[in-house]
Amino acid sequence: MFNLIPSGSVTSASGFLAGAVHAGIKSEDELDLAILCSEVPCKAAGVFTTSQIKSAPVILSQKHIAKGRAQAIVVNSGCANACMGGQGLADALGMANLAAAKLGLSPEDILVASTGIIGVPLPMDKIRTGIPKIKPTRGGGHDFCRSIMTTDTRPKEMAVQVDSKGTKFTIGGVAKGIGMIHPNLATMLCFIATDAVVSADFLPAALQKAVDCSFNMVSIDGDTSPNDCAFLLANGLAGNEPIDFDNGGDFQEALTAVCTHLAKSMARDGEGATKLIEVTVEGAEDPVWARQAARTIASSPLVKAAIHGNDPNWGRIVAALGRSGARVREDRLDVYLNDVCVMKQGCPTPFIKAEMISALSNSDNVFIRLCLHLGDGQATAWGCDLSEEYVRINSRYTT
Amino acid sequence: MFNLIPSGSVTSASGFLAGAVHAGIKSEDELDLAILCSEVPCKAAGVFTTSQIKSAPVILSQKHIAKGRAQAIVVNSGCANACMGGQGLADALGMANLAAAKLGLSPEDILVASTGIIGVPLPMDKIRTGIPKIKPTRGGGHDFCRSIMTTDTRPKEMAVQVDSKGTKFTIGGVAKGIGMIHPNLATMLCFIATDAVVSADFLPAALQKAVDCSFNMVSIDGDTSPNDCAFLLANGLAGNEPIDFDNGGDFQEALTAVCTHLAKSMARDGEGATKLIEVTVEGAEDPVWARQAARTIASSPLVKAAIHGNDPNWGRIVAALGRSGARVREDRLDVYLNDVCVMKQGCPTPFIKAEMISALSNSDNVFIRLCLHLGDGQATAWGCDLSEEYVRINSRYTT
Repeated sequence: MFNLIPSGSVTSASGFLAGAVHAGIKSEDELDLAILCSEVPCKAAGVFTTSQIKSAPVILSQKHIAKGRAQAIVVNSGCANACMGGQGLADALGMANLAAAKLGLSPEDILVASTGIIGVPLPMDKIRTGIPKIKPTRGGGHDFCRSIMTTDTRPKEMAVQVDSKGTKFTIGGVAKGIGMIHPNLATMLCFIATDAVVSADFLPAALQKAVDCSFNMVSIDGDTSPNDCAFLLANGLAGNEPIDFDNGGDFQEALTAVCTHLAKSMARDGEGATKLIEVTVEGAEDPVWARQAARTIASSPLVKAAIHGNDPNWGRIVAALGRSGARVREDRLDVYLNDVCVMKQGCPTPFIKAEMISALSNSDNVFIRLCLHLGDGQATAWGCDLSEEYVRINSRYTT
Repeated sequence: MFNLIPSGSVTSASGFLAGAVHAGIKSEDELDLAILCSEVPCKAAGVFTTSQIKSAPVILSQKHIAKGRAQAIVVNSGCANACMGGQGLADALGMANLAAAKLGLSPEDILVASTGIIGVPLPMDKIRTGIPKIKPTRGGGHDFCRSIMTTDTRPKEMAVQVDSKGTKFTIGGVAKGIGMIHPNLATMLCFIATDAVVSADFLPAALQKAVDCSFNMVSIDGDTSPNDCAFLLANGLAGNEPIDFDNGGDFQEALTAVCTHLAKSMARDGEGATKLIEVTVEGAEDPVWARQAARTIASSPLVKAAIHGNDPNWGRIVAALGRSGARVREDRLDVYLNDVCVMKQGCPTPFIKAEMISALSNSDNVFIRLCLHLGDGQATAWGCDLSEEYVRINSRYTT
C-alpha cells in the first residue's frame, strides 16, 4: 500500500539532499550541474545502457556501483562525455573527484551521469567552478529535476509513502525523458532515492524488475543512448524491518509504480508527441513474446503516424504484431482500439468510423489491446505518436 | 558479365508476356490488375514475408510454388486481401482460377499477389470482369510495372543480358516499393523473369541469396507487410547449358545486380524521401553482425532525420551501431560520412563542418561507412531520410 506525496521529489525520503547550479555547459541560463546525496552511506543499485558504445560516466559508475554502495550522484546536462576515448574517462573521474572533495566523501562513493552532445569534450573548467557552488538541501529535489531536463517540456518526478507491515518508508524518483539534447542523442536518466532498509541482494533485483516493466517498455523512436542509466539509492533511515525477497512485495509494488509513472511521463513528453499510446498484449504464449509484441507495436512508425492522424487504421497494428516475432494464430486474434473491438477472431469487426475518429481526436491517451488467446503472457508498453514536429526537431540542427 | 538492356522490363526475357487493365479496384483511372505469363512452363522460386500475419495470396502462392513450377502470376493493387479469414483464401483462389481459365492453364500453375488496404474484401466482381480483358504481350512489361505501383512515384524495373560461357540469357525484374497504399500498408512485391535454363535446386538458392543482400537490406521504416513476396520464373527458352551451383556465378551476379537495383530504387523512392542512404559496415566479427549493424543504422529514425537536415551528426550513427548488437571495440572504430573521416579509433576527427553540410545538401546519395577492425564481416544496407512529408503521408488518412 502506498500513497502519493503531493509535490514529492527525489529528496522526499529522509536524509536525501540535492542542489543544482547553472555552470554554463548549456548556453542558456538553465540549471545544468547537480548533486544528489545522502546524509549517510547508501546501498546502491544501477541499471545501465545495453549499448556497446558506453559513455565514460556509465563506465565509471558501473565500476563504482559494483560494490553495492554509494552516497552521492553528480550529474551534468549539455554534454554526454561519450566517444571521447581516454580523455572522457579522465573527465568522468575528475567529476567524481570534485564532487567527493565538495562532500567530504571518497570518489568511489560517487556515481556520475551525463547527458548531452556526444563527441564533445566535457568543459572541465566549468565543472570545476560549478561543483563547489552547489548547495544540497532537503528541498533541492525539484531543482535537481530541472537540471537534468533537456528537450523535456515537463519535469518528471514522483514520490510515494509506503505503509508496509506497520512501518513507513518513502521512495522518491526523478527522470529525464528520451528527448534529444540540442538535438543530439536520446538519453534516459533516472534517479531513485529511498529511506527504506533493503537487503543488498534484493535492491538490484527490485530495480531490475521495476525497470523491465517500466522504462524498458517505453519507446520514443527505438534509439538507445550510450548514457542511459537508472540508479537506486537506499539509505535505510526509515528504520523498517529489512526488506528482502520474502517480504519485499510492498516495496516492489511502490518502486514499480514510481518507475512506471516516470516512464509514462517520458512517453507522453516524447519529442513532438501529442498523445500517449499504451499497448497491452494479452494471451501470448509467454511473457517474453508479449513484451516483444507490445514493444514492436508501440514503436512502429506506421502505428505512431496513424495515431497522430487520429486514424483507426488497425491494419498497421496487426502488421506490427505479425513481424514482432510473437506467435500469432490469426483466427484467434482480437484487437481493441480505445476499448472498441476492431478485429475479432482474425476478421474485421464493423465500427462507426466517425465516432472512432472523434474519440481518438479528443483523447490524449490511446489504448491498444490485443488478445492472442494462446497462453498467459501479458505485457504493456508505452509510446507516443509520430508527428511532423519530431522530424523538425531532429533534422534542424544545422539550419 | 552482364549488360543493361535499355528500357528493359520484366518481359525482356524470351517467351514472357504481360498485360494490365484498370479493373476499378483503385478509385482513380489507374492500372490495378495484371498478368505476367510465360509461353511455356517455368521453374519457379519465391521468397515470402516473415510476418506471422500472412495475406491470403501469400498463403496460396506458397502452396502453389512448393512444387517448384509455375507459368503465370496474377496481381492486383488497391486491396491487400489480408486479415479476411476464410473469405480471403477463397478470393485468392478465385483469382487464380480466373487467371487459369483466361490462360488455359491449371490453377496450380498460377501465383497470386495483392497489395493495398488490409481488412477489406477483394472486389471479386471487378476481378471477374477485369481478368478476361487483360491482353498479355511481349511489350507489356512496362504496363505491368505501372499496375503494381501504389504510392511509388517512379517505376522500378530493370533487365540485363548475361553472357556466360558462350551462351546468352536475359533476366528482367520489376518491383513495387515500400510505399503505403492509400496510405495503409507497406508492401514490397518483386517479380523476376528469366529465359535461362536453371536447375530446380539452384533457382531458389540463387533467389534467396540475391534477396538477402538486396531487398532484405532495405529499410524504409522498419515495418513488414503480410503481403511481401518476390517471385523468380525461369522458362529455359535461352537454351543455355543448365545453370547449377557449380557454374551459377554469372547468373547469381546478374540476378543480385537486378535485385540490388530494384532495392535501391525502393529506398530512394521511400515515402517522403529526398535522399538515398547507403550504409556499409566493414571489419565486423562476422557477416551476420555486419548485416545487423548496417540495417540498424540505415533504419534509425535519428540518423534518418539528421540526414534529412544535412546534419553531419555522426554521434547518432555511432549510437545506432552501439545498440545494433554487433560487437564493437570503441578504440578501433573508424567512421566515414561521404568518405570524410569523422571518427578515428573511437575519437572525433576534426572536419570542416560547413563543407560537410554543403556536400550533404548537394547530394542525393549519402554514404556512411564504418570500419570495426574486428574481422572480415562486411555488409551494405540502404535506407532513406525521414522527412516531415513521411509523417504527413502516414497520418492524414482520415483528415
